[in-house]
Amino acid sequence: MTDDIVLEARRNKVAHLTMNRPGARNSLSMAMLERLHSEIVDLGRAHDVYVIVINANGPGFCAGHDLKELTAARAQADKGLAFFEETMAKCARLMQAIVSCPKPVIAQVHGIATAAGCQLVASCDLAVAADNARFATPGVNIGLFCSTPMVALSRNVSRKAAMEMLLTGDMIPADQALQFGLVNKVVTAGELEAATNALANKIAAKAPATLLIGKEAFYHQIEMPLVDAYDHASRVMVANMIEPDAEEGIGAFVEKREPNWRPLSADTHG
Amino acid sequence: MTDDIVLEARRNKVAHLTMNRPGARNSLSMAMLERLHSEIVDLGRAHDVYVIVINANGPGFCAGHDLKELTAARAQADKGLAFFEETMAKCARLMQAIVSCPKPVIAQVHGIATAAGCQLVASCDLAVAADNARFATPGVNIGLFCSTPMVALSRNVSRKAAMEMLLTGDMIPADQALQFGLVNKVVTAGELEAATNALANKIAAKAPATLLIGKEAFYHQIEMPLVDAYDHASRVMVANMIEPDAEEGIGAFVEKREPNWRPLSADTHG
Amino acid sequence: MTDDIVLEARRNKVAHLTMNRPGARNSLSMAMLERLHSEIVDLGRAHDVYVIVINANGPGFCAGHDLKELTAARAQADKGLAFFEETMAKCARLMQAIVSCPKPVIAQVHGIATAAGCQLVASCDLAVAADNARFATPGVNIGLFCSTPMVALSRNVSRKAAMEMLLTGDMIPADQALQFGLVNKVVTAGELEAATNALANKIAAKAPATLLIGKEAFYHQIEMPLVDAYDHASRVMVANMIEPDAEEGIGAFVEKREPNWRPLSADTHG
Repeated sequence: MTDDIVLEARRNKVAHLTMNRPGARNSLSMAMLERLHSEIVDLGRAHDVYVIVINANGPGFCAGHDLKELTAARAQADKGLAFFEETMAKCARLMQAIVSCPKPVIAQVHGIATAAGCQLVASCDLAVAADNARFATPGVNIGLFCSTPMVALSRNVSRKAAMEMLLTGDMIPADQALQFGLVNKVVTAGELEAATNALANKIAAKAPATLLIGKEAFYHQIEMPLVDAYDHASRVMVANMIEPDAEEGIGAFVEKREPNWRPLSADTHG
Repeated sequence: MTDDIVLEARRNKVAHLTMNRPGARNSLSMAMLERLHSEIVDLGRAHDVYVIVINANGPGFCAGHDLKELTAARAQADKGLAFFEETMAKCARLMQAIVSCPKPVIAQVHGIATAAGCQLVASCDLAVAADNARFATPGVNIGLFCSTPMVALSRNVSRKAAMEMLLTGDMIPADQALQFGLVNKVVTAGELEAATNALANKIAAKAPATLLIGKEAFYHQIEMPLVDAYDHASRVMVANMIEPDAEEGIGAFVEKREPNWRPLSADTHG
Repeated sequence: MTDDIVLEARRNKVAHLTMNRPGARNSLSMAMLERLHSEIVDLGRAHDVYVIVINANGPGFCAGHDLKELTAARAQADKGLAFFEETMAKCARLMQAIVSCPKPVIAQVHGIATAAGCQLVASCDLAVAADNARFATPGVNIGLFCSTPMVALSRNVSRKAAMEMLLTGDMIPADQALQFGLVNKVVTAGELEAATNALANKIAAKAPATLLIGKEAFYHQIEMPLVDAYDHASRVMVANMIEPDAEEGIGAFVEKREPNWRPLSADTHG
């Protein structure tokens, strides 16, 4: 075992990022924010990675910001202002890097996922949770409202559900998170890794260039009015149609054979 | 039985459009897209039609675009580009015609509704599904991401649910589609037609001019910020209040009698 | 018992507004709209109120606009136009005042909540319902589409659920309202008051200045594109971090002691 704060492993075309500060409940210190960001950016560019999984070592997924580090910064001359600004900027940058990463990102969640840890789950494209997973935005309990986590949370769950989590700070069990739409699936803790890997492998077997096209188009069109969204998506779909993978995929489907996808390369991957 | 690709039947004030290419799983060929569009536009203008139902003959609802037709177009000099562009433009035009149609449109779904067939369900105002209905956006499996279906899908279901359907291409059973918000109701296959007709007839018994006002306002306000949405909806409601149907309807309610609605006409129907 | 149309009671830091026109099913007459608005504005400014509960006397929560009053206005020279305009303007102003009120507002709902009464529930930040609560937007039944209620409703529930309520006018039972996301919790009628108070008291024990910051940021960021939402929320969170409550709250958390929040005052409360 290394004591590196983020471990990276590759299995087939899936990269697994493991947050590895169990003693600090994987809290998002400045170093952790920077490291996760650079990993996501690098994996987004790697030709041999099609899907990214984020998971965690220790009893829980992620407890949010590192309160000890934030508190220590109050001793500085500016009472921590510059440090707080940098922390929030790097946190927002990480969460948006997950959204703009061209590869699907899956959260594999066990134990607690709170505050910016809950935001991390909400920011991923997909999430698989163990039945022992619990979610909260408890900043309100420490006088620091979960204002940046709510950006991701309120784009995943209904307004009343988001408001309840934000105003009460209460822990939400996994099955309620599923009902709210915060996670895609709940399995036993023993099945978590296998279920996440099965989902990741299923997606990694698709044409990787097609995944890039689709994920980018999803977050682009979802913020547009309907007319603009159709204009954009129609252009994307025509461009996709004249790519080799669509010709191969449709041909394979019509001929009832397995498709043979192009690997990612400088050509397919921009 | 006719071999016309779309059958139209009227019962009371409800028009039933039946996709009738069962051998091609009711796929949306260019001819089908054009025909459904012209039917929706015509029924939107017809004074004796208050509600539209879209259903299908054969084992399933609709399998999306006609892949054989798209593949055949690759033989053209431009490798199909112009044909693909026209197909996507006509598909987007049909889906938006359903949204902008002044009459409520109900999807009556049995068997598979996949790709643009799933988009068709998502684009309707309401949907009733048989318990044998299954939904998917499987373009990712053939190298052609369901980018235009996702415009409608992602406005019906949560982000994580939409992403799961889009990235995996998996079939979603009817009860999960209900939970996701993609359909309003699930009934047995034997009850599908009766349940859809009951819903359609219930709505067709309302003041038809009021349905026009309400549906148009719904899609208009939903894309606005809150302040603008209230400005718009308040103006709509005052205009509605001074229409004869509101006077008749409120009078009937206060006097505990049945209302007598105006039929649609050039006056009420623009 | 007073016959005042709105009763106000304070318990701890929670203000309870009780609609008190049971004979008129608490319908939102012009007087009721004005009174609720002025109460919400005043309580929003009151330093000793942290949370607001809206509940109702009589068999139901609120039946929407006062149809008798609206009908009486038709006798005026302008056939009621000015009165209708004023009613809609004051209704939209009340609903937006709830959203922009710096204190969390909780609807405590029993019996029917229909039309603008359903809108009132949707406009509150949170809602607790008795199992006898029923919700509808039945304007379509009286020729007056629930166009302003749908502004709030369609921001709480999925499009297909909203459309079903709006086009059918059907009554939705409490458990379905919970599934749709219109309410946070359903309890027995006998437990309604205690459950609502427990929720209100839990929130009223948080740092009140933090609640103000969070609620305002929520409705601000939810209408923004993702990038702008993160810019805004990050600024809010840094500002929150350098407030005394965050220092106290984080300190208490790290030291495992109870926090001691500042009361609201001209300083904290703008």
